[in-house]
Amino acid sequence: MATADKPKYKVIGTRPVRHDGVDKVTGRAQYGADVRLNGMLYAATLRSPHAQARIKRIDTSKAEQAKGVRAVVTGADFPDQGDRVVELGEGSVNMRHLSANVMARDKVLYVGHALAAVAADTIHDAEEALQLIEVEYEVLPPVMHVMDGMRDEVILNDDVRTDYMGEKSDAPTNIAKRFLFEVGDLEQGFAEADVIVEREFDTATVHQGYIEPHNATVLWNADDKITVWLSTQGTFTVRQQTAELLRMPVSSVKVVPMEIGGGFGGKISVYLPPVAAVLSRKSGRPVKSVMSRADVFAATGPTPGSRMRVKLGATRDGKLTAGEAWIAFEAGGYPGSPVGPACMCVFSCYDLPNGKVEGFDVCVNKPRSNAYRAPGSTHVAMATETLVDEICRQIEMDPAEFRLKNAAKEGVRRVDGPVYGRIGMAETVEAIRDSEHYRSPLEGAHRGRGIATGFWFNAGLKSAVTATVNADGTVSLVEGSTDIGGSRTGIAMQLAETLGIAAEDVTPTVADTDSVGYTDVTGGSRVTFATGIAAIEAAKDIRGQMVERAAQLWEVETNQVRYEDGQFIGPAQSVGFKELAQQLHATSGPIVGHGTSSEAAQSGAFGTHCVDVEVDEETGKVQILRYTVAQDVGTAIHPSYVEGQMQGGAVQGIGWALNEEYWYDEQGRLHNPTFLDYRIPTCYDVPMIETLIVEVPDPSHPYGVRGVGEVPICPPPAAIANAIYAAVGVRMDVLPMSPPRLFAKLQDRS
Amino acid sequence: MATADKPKYKVIGTRPVRHDGVDKVTGRAQYGADVRLNGMLYAATLRSPHAQARIKRIDTSKAEQAKGVRAVVTGADFPDQGDRVVELGEGSVNMRHLSANVMARDKVLYVGHALAAVAADTIHDAEEALQLIEVEYEVLPPVMHVMDGMRDEVILNDDVRTDYMGEKSDAPTNIAKRFLFEVGDLEQGFAEADVIVEREFDTATVHQGYIEPHNATVLWNADDKITVWLSTQGTFTVRQQTAELLRMPVSSVKVVPMEIGGGFGGKISVYLPPVAAVLSRKSGRPVKSVMSRADVFAATGPTPGSRMRVKLGATRDGKLTAGEAWIAFEAGGYPGSPVGPACMCVFSCYDLPNGKVEGFDVCVNKPRSNAYRAPGSTHVAMATETLVDEICRQIEMDPAEFRLKNAAKEGVRRVDGPVYGRIGMAETVEAIRDSEHYRSPLEGAHRGRGIATGFWFNAGLKSAVTATVNADGTVSLVEGSTDIGGSRTGIAMQLAETLGIAAEDVTPTVADTDSVGYTDVTGGSRVTFATGIAAIEAAKDIRGQMVERAAQLWEVETNQVRYEDGQFIGPAQSVGFKELAQQLHATSGPIVGHGTSSEAAQSGAFGTHCVDVEVDEETGKVQILRYTVAQDVGTAIHPSYVEGQMQGGAVQGIGWALNEEYWYDEQGRLHNPTFLDYRIPTCYDVPMIETLIVEVPDPSHPYGVRGVGEVPICPPPAAIANAIYAAVGVRMDVLPMSPPRLFAKLQDRS
Repeated sequence: MATADKPKYKVIGTRPVRHDGVDKVTGRAQYGADVRLNGMLYAATLRSPHAQARIKRIDTSKAEQAKGVRAVVTGADFPDQGDRVVELGEGSVNMRHLSANVMARDKVLYVGHALAAVAADTIHDAEEALQLIEVEYEVLPPVMHVMDGMRDEVILNDDVRTDYMGEKSDAPTNIAKRFLFEVGDLEQGFAEADVIVEREFDTATVHQGYIEPHNATVLWNADDKITVWLSTQGTFTVRQQTAELLRMPVSSVKVVPMEIGGGFGGKISVYLPPVAAVLSRKSGRPVKSVMSRADVFAATGPTPGSRMRVKLGATRDGKLTAGEAWIAFEAGGYPGSPVGPACMCVFSCYDLPNGKVEGFDVCVNKPRSNAYRAPGSTHVAMATETLVDEICRQIEMDPAEFRLKNAAKEGVRRVDGPVYGRIGMAETVEAIRDSEHYRSPLEGAHRGRGIATGFWFNAGLKSAVTATVNADGTVSLVEGSTDIGGSRTGIAMQLAETLGIAAEDVTPTVADTDSVGYTDVTGGSRVTFATGIAAIEAAKDIRGQMVERAAQLWEVETNQVRYEDGQFIGPAQSVGFKELAQQLHATSGPIVGHGTSSEAAQSGAFGTHCVDVEVDEETGKVQILRYTVAQDVGTAIHPSYVEGQMQGGAVQGIGWALNEEYWYDEQGRLHNPTFLDYRIPTCYDVPMIETLIVEVPDPSHPYGVRGVGEVPICPPPAAIANAIYAAVGVRMDVLPMSPPRLFAKLQDRS
Repeated sequence: MATADKPKYKVIGTRPVRHDGVDKVTGRAQYGADVRLNGMLYAATLRSPHAQARIKRIDTSKAEQAKGVRAVVTGADFPDQGDRVVELGEGSVNMRHLSANVMARDKVLYVGHALAAVAADTIHDAEEALQLIEVEYEVLPPVMHVMDGMRDEVILNDDVRTDYMGEKSDAPTNIAKRFLFEVGDLEQGFAEADVIVEREFDTATVHQGYIEPHNATVLWNADDKITVWLSTQGTFTVRQQTAELLRMPVSSVKVVPMEIGGGFGGKISVYLPPVAAVLSRKSGRPVKSVMSRADVFAATGPTPGSRMRVKLGATRDGKLTAGEAWIAFEAGGYPGSPVGPACMCVFSCYDLPNGKVEGFDVCVNKPRSNAYRAPGSTHVAMATETLVDEICRQIEMDPAEFRLKNAAKEGVRRVDGPVYGRIGMAETVEAIRDSEHYRSPLEGAHRGRGIATGFWFNAGLKSAVTATVNADGTVSLVEGSTDIGGSRTGIAMQLAETLGIAAEDVTPTVADTDSVGYTDVTGGSRVTFATGIAAIEAAKDIRGQMVERAAQLWEVETNQVRYEDGQFIGPAQSVGFKELAQQLHATSGPIVGHGTSSEAAQSGAFGTHCVDVEVDEETGKVQILRYTVAQDVGTAIHPSYVEGQMQGGAVQGIGWALNEEYWYDEQGRLHNPTFLDYRIPTCYDVPMIETLIVEVPDPSHPYGVRGVGEVPICPPPAAIANAIYAAVGVRMDVLPMSPPRLFAKLQDRS
């Protein structure tokens, strides 16, 4: 669904074969677990069996003497962090907490919390030696739900001290931070409403479910230079975190990116690199550490469970007048849940004149939570978008019409402050409203259709690339953005477009931290946007140099040569990029360009989804019959990748909606840390996800790119909840809407 | 011996620990043979047992069926090159010859010439399979000396057709090229001479003797992208040669540089990469190929054996009036000996008004010759510098005084054309003349002292680097020059000097061909000079960006900020590089700089050596008693490295002077292809080489750098020959001056 006035691109909008495709299809691509170094040791980690306990004593002496063991570390081997708070690219991080999460010191705060590690000649020796580490625990009662955490009866961290009003408390609490955003006059807003709906929602702890477990191989060299090979969403982030945790200069750490088998926000925080680093320092050998699937579930950051209360008011003719949200997220053992973004997203799809949003980051005895694709936004979309549906039912208005009437658009101020630039919220609703799917009748018993909208603000941050011209007129592109979802190709295409060459004539390389300029994390839907801008800048740099060289070659002034439509044009000559590059290589020096981008803000992404479900009333199982994603992607650089992001995000949202959750018992033990028991959707569970690409170019990018990776996960739970209501008349206020839960609700209804 | 007006440098001239030192000392550095890939096969090469033969038939069918064999290749598997001549960075290369040298087609032209290769699961399987390849040869008589080659009785290559006058011949010849340079009036020059000396010289075929054998691991991927891991003097040269030999675009080949254990000119031409590439294509697996020491001697390019006749005339008061040189080099099986440079160097140390130089590149049945440290210059220095000594004896003039009287200097025209810029020939002679060594008496029987001078013109060519600023104010430097002799550190120091930071605050990386701009070979003593210029340019680029950022930060105009002495200075502020970098990282975008250099010509390097020897008259063995190298290095960036180059070059020259030579029998079989039988100097053979660094800054480099790597190999044979004469009164005209040869001369004398 391209806009009529779309510029004529030659490369953008085409679907070239991805540069890394052959390696990935043939199995040649090297992932973190493929790293092998001479003399490499294998690490195993001792993890807490208790959800909360004081560590009274750790004795590693027997383990140190065990067969094959070369080094043992505990929290005592890591530098003291004091009260340091460090900017780590994604925000301020309390280093004491980050350090303790990597390796516990005085307390363990969740089952799976690391408290010692062994490096040995074989993984078997290392695992055997773990059994010889003696730990004396003082077991403490666990806090397993955000509401229990907020009662402050059992305290996790002595240095967490925020009260319900967001003030500093004298006594320790479990509240790490309170967010508050207000706009307009809330009381007045609700007074103007003809309809007010309010519900309380619970969502479960959910994991990103990436296929590849965390891994790191580290060499701490004799000159105190540390090299880390791993798969990660951000090499520079790993570098900085590792350096800060070890209290070394950042330049003493080099991070080499391996291919990554999924991240979704979960491969930004470090777990293994600092531990493997200290094991390497102690042993003098490279050390490899790879998590098991159970480790990944139990000890890496899932997205938090939450409790939310949301209230919306609207007039009878379908105008939202007020919204209020109270949002509490489970931080896990240490602060840092994405409740902040949740507060920013809860009402972000709408032009809401009066609003109040309050958010709490609350410690509980679960793994320290982390980002997961549009972090926080899926939670709140479940609340807001089901309440909007409820209003539509009450005022008998088509839910697409209601959304169009209230859609956020350019100039609208979000409750948390920012004013929107050019956005495509309304266009995505229109795309669904006008779709064959939405317009076709849905027949059959226990079937229903629902729609919902989602928002993600999309980050900018910093990127750098360099590019060099080869003798055959092709271009090598060096970038620092690790490629999770096809960014190599998406960035190469922007470079190619700007230079007037084919995408296949660009060879992209994702380089280590010593070989490319500082580049922020692959996350926040920022890479195709921001690293793309850097690539465009590099292309312009190259173009400028080639114009100068052409002018020299033709013996004319530089301003007599222009670049147009892939041709360098002089007063009496014209030559294509490749031909000129070939000539220049023979006649003059190397051509190297670079580009950077910094902090450019995107205008935000919206998506509207439509789903048809059928509910099995005898079991509570929900079957997805049809699913359509409409999303404003700005300009689709590589439509296949864009569709893949839309489909993949929707499928993850469907898993979250219907099945996925951590199962803890009362002692805080996790009972389903495997993909057998933690059920993510398979191809048997979902139909082909239909996609409607909406292109409202983002004016902050030269080609109008918007980040596309995150927003498609937001609408599915609400859309499915709305469809369930349409099917069986039950309002779901809990995630996942798994068969037992829905079955119970169905029983309540009857 | 620093000049008085030397600029005050902070980094240049210091001796920081080399960046790659720890890895090399601890054995962690990864060389070509350390490459291991999943599913990797091992290659073995079938080599000719005959010095010259026609290949009537090769049958590989049994080998293809042998245990573990995955692919077999012969010359027929390589693309036809027709009559292509390609510019390969070092000059024009006849691709048919290069291809046939990599894998013979119709003829083998030397013992060791490759004619088939096998890739198998193990190296043992591969070697076993070689035995099963059936070859039917028509053995031809070999041509084993340059003078036999010039007789054209037996022809090696049908397409080589140059006659004695350098004209194209109708019939095939063995002369590939004739060089001719003339200046002044030769007849008149000799007529003005009071003394004329003339001798004929023979020098043996000598190998570079690098420690690490040739190696290559190649993956030809399913998308026709080829990756080559190897140790080489030039990744881009390997890329281009491999691509041209396979007739693929250069950008389809990526060359990843491993550490290199010596090259000295011998690791520029490719031998293994194209063969391993085709084996990989046929097998679908990565293929590793590593030469044995015997392969290296028999089948890679040594420096050619030669026959030279040189004549010099001078007045009684010590002024050179004329010189004539006739130089014939053994090209080996295919054309391409360094006889051209030999012609350019033969009289290059002197202001010679009348001269004629004639050179011949002649095919013989030895491996295709190659560069070896100042290629061709050591040969001719043996001739010219011993004749100069002979003149000095005849006119009873101190050899240092004679050289000073005739020294080439700025403005002097070389016989081959170029006019010198600022050079330090005279200064190196003065350094020796004034040295404690030269001024101290040498006592004892059969002892003598000799001096000699040498020249190398030093190349410029193309280089590119990129550099990025880290959050801690350090800088990462990416370069394309493989580091043989410490160039990482020498280049990093130039970047550091320009930025006003410490050498240790620069992290240099030698990148693959996809990750850095085009960079010519590490050779010609060009890297510290040319890649240094690129690094200085990159540093200026960074400085300029930081001045702009500082101006933004301070809210002043860019022209109000200047960089001085490591400080950015504004109207009311001042901040060091590191501090500003740290601030900028927090406040604005990444800082990336790049620099290139292209074709900048150096002014040439000179060295004068002084040696004391003792001759054992009973055996003809020469013992080096004391050895001093004086060399104009322009500006010594890292004096320890400079001294290392001076010492290493001198030791190689000593080996060439006294011991090293290929021993062929009449059938052209090489009898000493091992380090046991091919005798290079060990620490028992040479004293500590004393060094006198002379610094006459080269005005073509911002810091005055001159290449230092090559010229120190040139003077030793002549200096030692002159010392032998002084010791025992025998004029040596042959290399090596090994005990049997010297003993025979001593017998002749008596």
